[in-house]
Amino acid sequence: MSYSAIILAAGKGVRMRSQMPKVVHRVAGRPMIWYVVNAVREAGISDITLVVGHGREIVEEALRGENLHFVVQEQQLGTGHALMQAQNNIDPASTLIVLAGDTPLLEAATVKKLLAYHRQQGAEATVLSAFLPEPYGYGRIIREADGGLERIAEEKDASPEEKRITEINTGMYCFQAQPVFKALARINTANAQGEYYLTDVLPLLKQGGHKVAVMAIEETDQIHGINDRVQLARAESIIRQKQNQALMRNGVTIMAPETTFIDSQVEIGMDTVVYPFTIIEGQTRIGQNCVIGPHSRINDSLIGNDVVIENSRVNQARIADRCNIGPFAYLRPEAELHEDVKVGDFVEIKKSRIGAGSKVPHLSYVGDALLGKGVNVGAGTITCNYDGKNKHRTILEDRVFIGSNTNLVAPVTVGEDSITGAGSTITRDVPANTLAVERAEQRNLKKINKSKTSD
Amino acid sequence: MSYSAIILAAGKGVRMRSQMPKVVHRVAGRPMIWYVVNAVREAGISDITLVVGHGREIVEEALRGENLHFVVQEQQLGTGHALMQAQNNIDPASTLIVLAGDTPLLEAATVKKLLAYHRQQGAEATVLSAFLPEPYGYGRIIREADGGLERIAEEKDASPEEKRITEINTGMYCFQAQPVFKALARINTANAQGEYYLTDVLPLLKQGGHKVAVMAIEETDQIHGINDRVQLARAESIIRQKQNQALMRNGVTIMAPETTFIDSQVEIGMDTVVYPFTIIEGQTRIGQNCVIGPHSRINDSLIGNDVVIENSRVNQARIADRCNIGPFAYLRPEAELHEDVKVGDFVEIKKSRIGAGSKVPHLSYVGDALLGKGVNVGAGTITCNYDGKNKHRTILEDRVFIGSNTNLVAPVTVGEDSITGAGSTITRDVPANTLAVERAEQRNLKKINKSKTSD
Amino acid sequence: MSYSAIILAAGKGVRMRSQMPKVVHRVAGRPMIWYVVNAVREAGISDITLVVGHGREIVEEALRGENLHFVVQEQQLGTGHALMQAQNNIDPASTLIVLAGDTPLLEAATVKKLLAYHRQQGAEATVLSAFLPEPYGYGRIIREADGGLERIAEEKDASPEEKRITEINTGMYCFQAQPVFKALARINTANAQGEYYLTDVLPLLKQGGHKVAVMAIEETDQIHGINDRVQLARAESIIRQKQNQALMRNGVTIMAPETTFIDSQVEIGMDTVVYPFTIIEGQTRIGQNCVIGPHSRINDSLIGNDVVIENSRVNQARIADRCNIGPFAYLRPEAELHEDVKVGDFVEIKKSRIGAGSKVPHLSYVGDALLGKGVNVGAGTITCNYDGKNKHRTILEDRVFIGSNTNLVAPVTVGEDSITGAGSTITRDVPANTLAVERAEQRNLKKINKSKTSD
Repeated sequence: MSYSAIILAAGKGVRMRSQMPKVVHRVAGRPMIWYVVNAVREAGISDITLVVGHGREIVEEALRGENLHFVVQEQQLGTGHALMQAQNNIDPASTLIVLAGDTPLLEAATVKKLLAYHRQQGAEATVLSAFLPEPYGYGRIIREADGGLERIAEEKDASPEEKRITEINTGMYCFQAQPVFKALARINTANAQGEYYLTDVLPLLKQGGHKVAVMAIEETDQIHGINDRVQLARAESIIRQKQNQALMRNGVTIMAPETTFIDSQVEIGMDTVVYPFTIIEGQTRIGQNCVIGPHSRINDSLIGNDVVIENSRVNQARIADRCNIGPFAYLRPEAELHEDVKVGDFVEIKKSRIGAGSKVPHLSYVGDALLGKGVNVGAGTITCNYDGKNKHRTILEDRVFIGSNTNLVAPVTVGEDSITGAGSTITRDVPANTLAVERAEQRNLKKINKSKTSD
Repeated sequence: MSYSAIILAAGKGVRMRSQMPKVVHRVAGRPMIWYVVNAVREAGISDITLVVGHGREIVEEALRGENLHFVVQEQQLGTGHALMQAQNNIDPASTLIVLAGDTPLLEAATVKKLLAYHRQQGAEATVLSAFLPEPYGYGRIIREADGGLERIAEEKDASPEEKRITEINTGMYCFQAQPVFKALARINTANAQGEYYLTDVLPLLKQGGHKVAVMAIEETDQIHGINDRVQLARAESIIRQKQNQALMRNGVTIMAPETTFIDSQVEIGMDTVVYPFTIIEGQTRIGQNCVIGPHSRINDSLIGNDVVIENSRVNQARIADRCNIGPFAYLRPEAELHEDVKVGDFVEIKKSRIGAGSKVPHLSYVGDALLGKGVNVGAGTITCNYDGKNKHRTILEDRVFIGSNTNLVAPVTVGEDSITGAGSTITRDVPANTLAVERAEQRNLKKINKSKTSD
Repeated sequence: MSYSAIILAAGKGVRMRSQMPKVVHRVAGRPMIWYVVNAVREAGISDITLVVGHGREIVEEALRGENLHFVVQEQQLGTGHALMQAQNNIDPASTLIVLAGDTPLLEAATVKKLLAYHRQQGAEATVLSAFLPEPYGYGRIIREADGGLERIAEEKDASPEEKRITEINTGMYCFQAQPVFKALARINTANAQGEYYLTDVLPLLKQGGHKVAVMAIEETDQIHGINDRVQLARAESIIRQKQNQALMRNGVTIMAPETTFIDSQVEIGMDTVVYPFTIIEGQTRIGQNCVIGPHSRINDSLIGNDVVIENSRVNQARIADRCNIGPFAYLRPEAELHEDVKVGDFVEIKKSRIGAGSKVPHLSYVGDALLGKGVNVGAGTITCNYDGKNKHRTILEDRVFIGSNTNLVAPVTVGEDSITGAGSTITRDVPANTLAVERAEQRNLKKINKSKTSD
């Protein structure tokens, strides 16, 4: 038996008040539709077709590389019409899951249950329903006397009595592809909204002698579509807290989970403590026994064990064991810190390798540099790596000691065990074991008027 | 028909444990009494009298410019006594709203409903009541057999049976001014607290053949007075979340509303994303499609479209489209950034205009300066604008390139397309197309002892 | 009558997934077992014995200086076995409280109530029970027909009917020491877990004619043991909010308590406002009328009145009245700021005394320095205090004016009223009333190629 899935993602989402189509709005670091795709895939279905329309280039771009089929619904003429657009992509013999693209809380377990129930019931169509205390806005499940499904009444078409029904249609279905597409060919737009309702296939299937089942989901959180940014924030919070709880159960201390935002791809080792006001994003891996935060943001970085990062921004950096970062440090892409490195306050490191045990304690910019082991960089040091056109490299060999407020005008090399005098601008290479100084004579003059400084 | 309002704001608020009178404590960026004044005004009433007492200069100062009348209640002898102090300010023919100054959650809609009910009932007095599951501390609404108001029993005067009543007096009223002031003249202090109770006018009015109505409010959140700072924090949270929801409904993504604090005057454009740990205050306007935060605080600033501000402090600055700020930037008053400006890490900008496309990427102080277009300011650059007495101006013309760790001793001008050498102290003007250097010769000496740096 | 307490702290806490024993995991700045010790001590009991096992060196270290007895349970053979290990430490005539080490929410009031009930009942053993809607996992209280305790059935030994009982054993007890230790000698391991259950002493005591009482606690929050880090985070939140509420009730405004983390030892004066995203730890004392935060972390510091600290890290510093710190300042241990000092953005102060009214407004490192009164330190100033081996001191006397980007190569003294020129490296002492400059001549050259800077 083959499986396929169609995810409806053509709508604009007017209540989002956005230039972007609804389904690409981000929830916990991912477009919301990614979660639906992921739930389907984790349920074992790889043949996935998205029906796109509004802003479809943006939707396709947001899902690039996910190996999905896209079909276009030019005009939004209803859910039934949307499905028709995908007919050519679907194996008629397949069991077909139909979902909406705006339900990021949906879990794979639910898709699996729906598939299992559908199979166990021998149904041609299974509607996923839910009981909601406030069913307003949803299609209601109208059951026959014997409990079987009669039909679904959309809010706008429901009678006052039907509106009192609290069992609603989640808009998630499992179908046998062939009968549903046959039935789709026969539905029309004779309803309150003048649209092709996918739900209209259900009575047709029944009339044709096919079995139509209803499965009620208990975890009603999962079925809510996101329609505005208030709901978006709520979904974000649910996903974030689920992720935090998984990390905590795995041995990570998160001091205040409500103030901690960790993307789902992030891995963190045992006994690492995450302080409040911390954001960890993307493909980040953090080792054991670290102290991360407070007031930090880290993305796409590789961090060893026993590392301390306080009040710092770390973007695509590599940090080895026992490094100590911050407060107020900024590590940029290709910053690579070996073991036991200290990067202190008001320091930026960009595209530089810092050897084991080296220190850049304060107020420095290190860019396009190679630092050996045991190097000490004085406060106020700047690697002058840019001449207005090109970037040049600074090399500080092992045990170099850079005096405060030194300018290292690249390309330049300071040899092993050498020293630069405070306040020097180093424009020529410095051999090993050398003291390099660029400095005039200090003059102590009788004071006449004040020199300039800043406020 | 004319309308007036009296807001009672004479109390100290002992449980606040404060040197300041209760009603000026701030909730979501405003003194709490401001919200009451605003609700009255939005309900269409402009003739507003405040009865002040404790710390009255502070209350008046906090509401300066709001066009209000103030009358003084020297001694706090009860709510009835408070009202008497305002009698001379009130048009006897007016319909009079009476409110407490410590109910910042009150909304204009409630004031309007109270006015409408009062008018519709043809009442001389209408009490706003509420049903509270825990009525302790409030005056109870004692009704007659026919459901009409008999009187109000204060907590301290109520019988055990009366204390079981859950309908309470909110302390908000609508009166016809003339009859209520007449009745006020007849009340006394024969009660448990020895005070003039405003509520004592109600039986008197009834005895005089006037109609006394009661209107129950359903939104009981609105009527709670703030008595301590725990309640203050709760009101802050409710107002903040209301504001965040309004912004979200208007097309702003707020990733984590519970960690985001945005004052009510702030305007934010569609598709702007606000990251957690962000505070936006005062008269700030932010355009569309910006990314604001995390870890940022912005007040009273004007920000264009497509601007990125990360982990920065922005105070009274103007930032044009497509600027990129931070992390760890500090923009101070009169910082004015034209389009496409980059202000990076550990940079302070004060009272300076930065021309389009210019960059101050790191570790610099730019104060009292005019930068043209396409200027590049090297790391460690300082505008030495202060001579201990006066501030002086630095001018960097278009396409100037300032070397790292340059001191620009103002007043000083660097002409178009000119360059300064790294580590130079520029004390004299630099013409256009010039390379200005202040530097001694670099000497590479045999190392004898170590130079100084910092740890 | 003497009192003693035994706290069981030998378990590993497998579900914590940690290298550390469970009871030392931190809650609100303290090891969780500290709270149990503290509740016992505040209830008036000073003779406290801890039964330790897993990671006992770590537990003992975490409680060093708390004046406790430790006994070792080498193998975890049950709660009864744990108690036996402590027998030699306990006065047989004492009234003995037995608690678990993983219940940090326990309050002294509960211990006091348990002692009082035990005494009042004339009991030899009193079990603290609680009614939990979801009793799964706990031992159930099996009562006799007359309501007295029959025995306690552990989850694993309970019959289906017994499992339906919702009154559970909290694992907290009050005993007369002598009878309980006698009974302990008679229990065995004939049960589902093959362990010595402490609860088995209860029927034995009854058989011996001793009175066994049960006291139900209403505040069921207090009795929950922490078993994983999700529960740890929940306990942290409860303790934090309790602490915040106490501060608010004492006159501190905490704008958003859920985003504010203040350790229990911290003292804060009236009318101080704490902004969101703030952490205040350890032995910190803050005066009245300060504004602390947002985005700040302060530990073990002494802060006066009317101080403003914004977006800064303050670690073991002393800050006198009316100082203004930040944003983006870093005060390290032994930073000592006298009255009216300004420490601005991107400034680090370490082990230095800054005299009254002095200013270090931006981009500076001040370490191992003594600054007099009214000193002004220009942007980019570095005290070069480290020569690679030793630290040296910088002295700036009263009213010194340091030009921007000055290097002060310590040991060095700048005398009263003296000035240094911008960009100077000061290696020799500067007498009073002197202008010290180290600078070459500025040359304006025809531009040929570009100088170096950084990006």
